[in-house]
Amino acid sequence: MQTLNVIEMFMFQEEQPIREPGKGEVQLCMQKVGICGSDVHYWQEGRIGDRFIVTGPMLLGHECSAVVSKVGENVTHLKVGDRVAIEPHGICRVCEACKQGRYNLCPNVFFLATPPDSGALARYHVHGADFVFKLPDNVSYEEGALIEPLSVGLHACRRARLAMGHKVMVCGAGPIGLCAMLSAKAFGAAAVCMTDIDPVRLEFAEQCGATYTVLLEKGMTEEEVARKVTETLGDAPDRTIECSGAQFSVNLGVYATKPGGVFTIVGHGPNKVEFPVVSLVAKEIEIVGSFRYINTWQTAIDMIACGKINVAPLVTHRFTLEETMQAFEMAKSGKGVKVMIDCAKH
Amino acid sequence: MQTLNVIEMFMFQEEQPIREPGKGEVQLCMQKVGICGSDVHYWQEGRIGDRFIVTGPMLLGHECSAVVSKVGENVTHLKVGDRVAIEPHGICRVCEACKQGRYNLCPNVFFLATPPDSGALARYHVHGADFVFKLPDNVSYEEGALIEPLSVGLHACRRARLAMGHKVMVCGAGPIGLCAMLSAKAFGAAAVCMTDIDPVRLEFAEQCGATYTVLLEKGMTEEEVARKVTETLGDAPDRTIECSGAQFSVNLGVYATKPGGVFTIVGHGPNKVEFPVVSLVAKEIEIVGSFRYINTWQTAIDMIACGKINVAPLVTHRFTLEETMQAFEMAKSGKGVKVMIDCAKH
Amino acid sequence: MQTLNVIEMFMFQEEQPIREPGKGEVQLCMQKVGICGSDVHYWQEGRIGDRFIVTGPMLLGHECSAVVSKVGENVTHLKVGDRVAIEPHGICRVCEACKQGRYNLCPNVFFLATPPDSGALARYHVHGADFVFKLPDNVSYEEGALIEPLSVGLHACRRARLAMGHKVMVCGAGPIGLCAMLSAKAFGAAAVCMTDIDPVRLEFAEQCGATYTVLLEKGMTEEEVARKVTETLGDAPDRTIECSGAQFSVNLGVYATKPGGVFTIVGHGPNKVEFPVVSLVAKEIEIVGSFRYINTWQTAIDMIACGKINVAPLVTHRFTLEETMQAFEMAKSGKGVKVMIDCAKH
Amino acid sequence: MQTLNVIEMFMFQEEQPIREPGKGEVQLCMQKVGICGSDVHYWQEGRIGDRFIVTGPMLLGHECSAVVSKVGENVTHLKVGDRVAIEPHGICRVCEACKQGRYNLCPNVFFLATPPDSGALARYHVHGADFVFKLPDNVSYEEGALIEPLSVGLHACRRARLAMGHKVMVCGAGPIGLCAMLSAKAFGAAAVCMTDIDPVRLEFAEQCGATYTVLLEKGMTEEEVARKVTETLGDAPDRTIECSGAQFSVNLGVYATKPGGVFTIVGHGPNKVEFPVVSLVAKEIEIVGSFRYINTWQTAIDMIACGKINVAPLVTHRFTLEETMQAFEMAKSGKGVKVMIDCAKH
Repeated sequence: MQTLNVIEMFMFQEEQPIREPGKGEVQLCMQKVGICGSDVHYWQEGRIGDRFIVTGPMLLGHECSAVVSKVGENVTHLKVGDRVAIEPHGICRVCEACKQGRYNLCPNVFFLATPPDSGALARYHVHGADFVFKLPDNVSYEEGALIEPLSVGLHACRRARLAMGHKVMVCGAGPIGLCAMLSAKAFGAAAVCMTDIDPVRLEFAEQCGATYTVLLEKGMTEEEVARKVTETLGDAPDRTIECSGAQFSVNLGVYATKPGGVFTIVGHGPNKVEFPVVSLVAKEIEIVGSFRYINTWQTAIDMIACGKINVAPLVTHRFTLEETMQAFEMAKSGKGVKVMIDCAKH
Repeated sequence: MQTLNVIEMFMFQEEQPIREPGKGEVQLCMQKVGICGSDVHYWQEGRIGDRFIVTGPMLLGHECSAVVSKVGENVTHLKVGDRVAIEPHGICRVCEACKQGRYNLCPNVFFLATPPDSGALARYHVHGADFVFKLPDNVSYEEGALIEPLSVGLHACRRARLAMGHKVMVCGAGPIGLCAMLSAKAFGAAAVCMTDIDPVRLEFAEQCGATYTVLLEKGMTEEEVARKVTETLGDAPDRTIECSGAQFSVNLGVYATKPGGVFTIVGHGPNKVEFPVVSLVAKEIEIVGSFRYINTWQTAIDMIACGKINVAPLVTHRFTLEETMQAFEMAKSGKGVKVMIDCAKH
Repeated sequence: MQTLNVIEMFMFQEEQPIREPGKGEVQLCMQKVGICGSDVHYWQEGRIGDRFIVTGPMLLGHECSAVVSKVGENVTHLKVGDRVAIEPHGICRVCEACKQGRYNLCPNVFFLATPPDSGALARYHVHGADFVFKLPDNVSYEEGALIEPLSVGLHACRRARLAMGHKVMVCGAGPIGLCAMLSAKAFGAAAVCMTDIDPVRLEFAEQCGATYTVLLEKGMTEEEVARKVTETLGDAPDRTIECSGAQFSVNLGVYATKPGGVFTIVGHGPNKVEFPVVSLVAKEIEIVGSFRYINTWQTAIDMIACGKINVAPLVTHRFTLEETMQAFEMAKSGKGVKVMIDCAKH
Repeated sequence: MQTLNVIEMFMFQEEQPIREPGKGEVQLCMQKVGICGSDVHYWQEGRIGDRFIVTGPMLLGHECSAVVSKVGENVTHLKVGDRVAIEPHGICRVCEACKQGRYNLCPNVFFLATPPDSGALARYHVHGADFVFKLPDNVSYEEGALIEPLSVGLHACRRARLAMGHKVMVCGAGPIGLCAMLSAKAFGAAAVCMTDIDPVRLEFAEQCGATYTVLLEKGMTEEEVARKVTETLGDAPDRTIECSGAQFSVNLGVYATKPGGVFTIVGHGPNKVEFPVVSLVAKEIEIVGSFRYINTWQTAIDMIACGKINVAPLVTHRFTLEETMQAFEMAKSGKGVKVMIDCAKH
């Protein structure tokens, strides 16, 4: 199996000529790039599941902010020097999914740092201009890069039809779980209860704004945790968002979610899991898959700019592009929450 | 475990004084009562799952039509002699679920022939008048009784947000599967493909209006069947409705349903099943539980009366109330589709 | 035309024996009752439109909190001494609207202080227990009474399908407009811009949390105001909520709302108004009527209790039940925002 | 004001060199083109409202079928000789509306025969391939051309959230009204009642499948017609679709539509109309603008091919391209329903 040597990739990139932006594209001088769990997977395992397999050298990185360095033909909403955040999509725009506004399901999609597509952890990157969004002055480059994981949370909440007043359970307190929690609160949740097996993560979650946390301790059954979450929230959760990838949480979600509620699954774990189907039917629950995101960037920028969502505290470690190796080692260690790489030349 | 002696129950009922209807109730002279798979289960097994357990003598039967024999106080929409169909619900009307219009989730629900609640397979039955619906002259008593299984299909299609032009797969060609197919067509499906392990059932399904059928043969994998259904429909199904209760079909549903589609589960089978969760997420499919029905009777009556839904062919066997035992034996044999009992005194 | 003498009504009430609660009812010792514009209308005009006409003495008041003084049969969620808020509805529970969970459209509805139904501005009132909601300790009686106008705002936002990140225009900065603004923020609006003809109201709105305000000055056209609101918000409003009852605002709503957006009308004004229908069609806008509310009380309590909605500042004037006449004169003067009457005996 | 000389335009077109298809485009040999009311407007008045104004010579025609004569680069789903129907859209694909799947609201849209954009009533036309749809053998060129007006009806029903079992009123029995009626039936409407001022149109509507018709006679008020429609349908319409463009029908729609129902407006008439806003609010009706269509072609083809929608009877008059002048005179006369022009060289 092919795995990635990130140092080599960085060196390789430095030596490349910088591509000119085509029609409808912009050339970007990269600023901040966050490391995602998938980046670590491709680096270490060379694959995620059976669908995304590394077959050759590629760049990683899809959580990015940048400065516009050149503007291609037909681009009117951006100019050189604009501070921007990047949505990792490139889409075909002519398939059924694209024309229905569900371009995350485009079968011809290009997606940064998802094999066979290369990423943007580099000095420069050229991108479709309509997936590049101007940042207001009061949104930092780090916040701009964090819009990507935040978008996963926002999309999960949309898919869950999460609404004002809902009580919410979020399973898993990693970066995506934290972003789902921040999103749920921005959607007007009355309370968000997070679960995890790691008390340190739960403590961090409370600092970031989780209303409640429930620690999953060894030997507890899904039904027991479901009861504990219900007691904690004062009622069964109207919505559950699964960000852990664990079979335990898939079962927990069905047991805990209120009759008539929605249970959104974001987390990737084993290909197949067992779940209590009779309970799903009798309670009329919906299990809703949530994949990446659509049309979240501008909204995320607005919400960060007006102070309703605060993603900044998620960054726990910072490195330069030259320190990419150390950055990935830190991300792999699981010690921090979000590791951020500064791509600017200093 | 307690099982039911339906003959004894019938004898018992004959000897009872006929109860007067209370405020908001009507007394009904029963006409036709269909036998449901759940009736056979309670008779033979004394239970369905861990939730519904027979603990004493009870009447069966919840697919019913009748004639109004007495009218209680406060009832204005019915009069003695009216031909009617009966929705099996009795609800608390004050809980959150009732007030949100999702009374199928009422925790205080009374439901005919679901222990501990008795059924209506008898000469007379008293019922809440707002769950009793007048039949037009051109809707027969048998059609009136068939509104109950039809409602399961209609509700499943509503839960699936099934819409005009959809291509639909229905798993399982028993009475509920057939009703789901008839419902899907009434919702405007462009084509409905049914699957089953029994070629006789599939032939009957085609006679009832299924556009296509796919026989599940031994050794076929879920992915193979998914491909065959897609070829047959000319595209992956936009909506799938699971009425078989088989783990195979739960997996088939996730594999076959089009990205962005909805997969509704009606069928009850094992408490837990395995399903391909990664596929659910990557395709953004929704698995939606569908339980009984809400607010379907008047719509079903309108659709049968105007000829847009034809349920009549589902009845394959007929018995009198005195022949209840033979009727149940026939239902148990699985030879027919819908067994109908005539409760009128002749 | 019959108009109301509130003093007489109060005297009359004092002399009445206090009714015992029936099955499913509670007797309430009233605490705080807010005065609504409709109360003033019935008092002064004896009617609202052609539908609600005062034909005899009646109590006013439908924005209420109380203490439970007696509990009727079958009531389990309340006990004597509970601090509560009251939803003014009494419903038939058997009509199509009730069973679909849209009981605000129940044709047989009872509604406090809406002729011919009497209100609850009195020492005691008996009410259906399922429309009486326990207040947590940290929610005051005044906040409890304010849940009624807040619910109008919450329901308007639900009807508007208002969602996280929306930019919102609210027309009219009276109590309902303010409640719509508070609700929109609780639903996750990125920004709310309020319009009014009165600069004092707009100043108060900003103190209560409106992001922006636009003063409607004499001679401005609807199109001009629409442009100004769009400039202020940075984009056309995704959602508009009309709480002024003015034809100007109905036109403004259609002109200003973003293509594909929703324009909810809450305000009552003239029976008929002119609106730009060609613009509605070309922009695919929806005009959505919003009437009272459904299922908002518990949610409102949760949101006030957790601090996400702060209604307390709306109360600008306070009177005792004995000072009812002065309270109504103040409400009629339009000088304050919410006038609150303390019904407790001191 | 500039008006169009269709004969000149046709002559002009004959002399043009035939353009080669670019990347993602196909060149089409036109077969059938229907005449729309808007074509007649541009010909006679040179404008529709203030937005669409003819400023120079242009082709008319946007209801079209064709044969593929050349295939541009990157086009894989079509080949020379394919029989096709044409969706008149060309879109920017990068704006917010396009990326949300609401490309009918694209501010940069190209739309056939809508000034300043030219039409396709000609021997040849070049079009974006993703808006060109292959017709099955059993769908005729005339049916292919009729997909355009049918799509207006289908989109109106989607915007109305029209569902199985609904009772529907359609105002106006011209081609769009008839297409809305056919669409409503395909969506599963239990009954459709059409209104018009012309008894001949209503008779034709019944032949095409309208369940009921109500003639608008001089002197009838909107309320009277509303009552008559309700009596005819047996209940107030759940959904109303306005295709007449008359102020009378806008008022009728609000008065007649069932509380909680949806009233979709398709028809263009005067810029402003008066409507009963208090009734809208008290009944919680929604007025929904419906503009053109999105993503309807493939569905329409499926529904025509499977026999669930029969548009063929709408064509009442046929002409060749050389007889374009007579065809437009016939369309202008209002004597027929759909006038169809055969563009093929014979």
